[in-house]
Amino acid sequence: MPRVKLTLEYDGRSFVGWQRQDNGPSVQAALEAAILGYCGQACPTFASGRTDAGVHALGQVAHFDLPRDDPPHTVRAAINAHLHMARQPVAVLAADIVGDDFHARFSCLGRAYLYRVVNRPAPLALEAGRAWWVARPLDAEAMHAAAQVLVGRHDFTSFRAVACQSKSPLKTLDALSVTRVGETVEIRTQARSFLHHQVRNMVGTLALVGLGKWTADDLRAALEARDRAAAGATAPSDGLYFVRAWYE
Amino acid sequence: MPRVKLTLEYDGRSFVGWQRQDNGPSVQAALEAAILGYCGQACPTFASGRTDAGVHALGQVAHFDLPRDDPPHTVRAAINAHLHMARQPVAVLAADIVGDDFHARFSCLGRAYLYRVVNRPAPLALEAGRAWWVARPLDAEAMHAAAQVLVGRHDFTSFRAVACQSKSPLKTLDALSVTRVGETVEIRTQARSFLHHQVRNMVGTLALVGLGKWTADDLRAALEARDRAAAGATAPSDGLYFVRAWYE
Repeated sequence: MPRVKLTLEYDGRSFVGWQRQDNGPSVQAALEAAILGYCGQACPTFASGRTDAGVHALGQVAHFDLPRDDPPHTVRAAINAHLHMARQPVAVLAADIVGDDFHARFSCLGRAYLYRVVNRPAPLALEAGRAWWVARPLDAEAMHAAAQVLVGRHDFTSFRAVACQSKSPLKTLDALSVTRVGETVEIRTQARSFLHHQVRNMVGTLALVGLGKWTADDLRAALEARDRAAAGATAPSDGLYFVRAWYE
Repeated sequence: MPRVKLTLEYDGRSFVGWQRQDNGPSVQAALEAAILGYCGQACPTFASGRTDAGVHALGQVAHFDLPRDDPPHTVRAAINAHLHMARQPVAVLAADIVGDDFHARFSCLGRAYLYRVVNRPAPLALEAGRAWWVARPLDAEAMHAAAQVLVGRHDFTSFRAVACQSKSPLKTLDALSVTRVGETVEIRTQARSFLHHQVRNMVGTLALVGLGKWTADDLRAALEARDRAAAGATAPSDGLYFVRAWYE
């Protein structure tokens, strides 16, 4: 039973999130149905991280054990054919055979996210559901400068969902950058792992800086408060993209 | 009654096309309903060019006569509010007051289109309906070189829909470029005006060059045949974007 590593793209709008749930369609259920259709056996899949409802992926990583010996390009093509037939907005970008000790979640050394804000007076037509619309001008440079307060090892309680199941609120944020590309403000971040809603809570708080309501000192005070109520609102899921996960 | 020029973005997937039709929702009907909701009167709108079902716009231009004297930013915000309430994937990017002799279609000096092809083995998840998926590798440089055969004044009968209502098949193509940006192949073209399906027929034929099935000489022969059957298939609407229209 070779272990297969899949790199996945999906449009989060159709799903209740990565994880199989009773209350609606999940990416995991769509993927597992396609794998079942291909190989005739139910194969549980494991992702590098769970994404929430509405969150997209450009390069989610998942693994499963394949009960046959097809070459990787056949695995990719067959799963894609089944996803396509089922009209699921999920695509396998790559399939690779990995060692039995590979685990998409536990072997993962880091994750990168992108958050897209479209910053213009007009609401979104083409990008609806795929970016956060902020009508008032954002100062991306001020956001970037303030964001550096969050880089490094901190107690991120102020940016953690109340429902977060992580044992510790201590995380090391490796990078957090804010850049403007035309009318889009792109926030990119990476870390070994993130707390639940951490990226969206950081973005929602950085928006306060971008709108001129907060200074970098206000952001630092919110971090040091270790209180979710001290930071800004959770940015919508629409703008969040799981970009990649990396391994040894 | 000031005349208002609107610059519009829309997602063509929801519509039977720009033009009001009996068989489904149109961009024009959505826009006119929003204008009616805002100003309380039915105001006919006129676009620089009709887009087909599934074709998107980044900068369509339309005009109408407004039966009141609001400043342009109020017009934009009010129409957008009504479009947004109706959950229509249409947005007014700009509203400008223009002279009474302005006509979005008849004053138009040129139109530009973008056609997006995603060229990769995996089907589209995030870009489904917003690009043409071509799995086999396309040679964008060969496409660009061959495309120059089509630039200039020609009889474009070979690239014209049978249903095209234009009086003459003679058109002057001002530019046609093909560039690769990562896994996306972007085809950009501009002209004073285009025949029905001309861009999609040019793209479908250029794809034959990109796949190595046709040479630039084959493309020239297809043009000179003045016969729709001599050129390639019509590329799907998914990848086509009306980019802008310009005026004096």
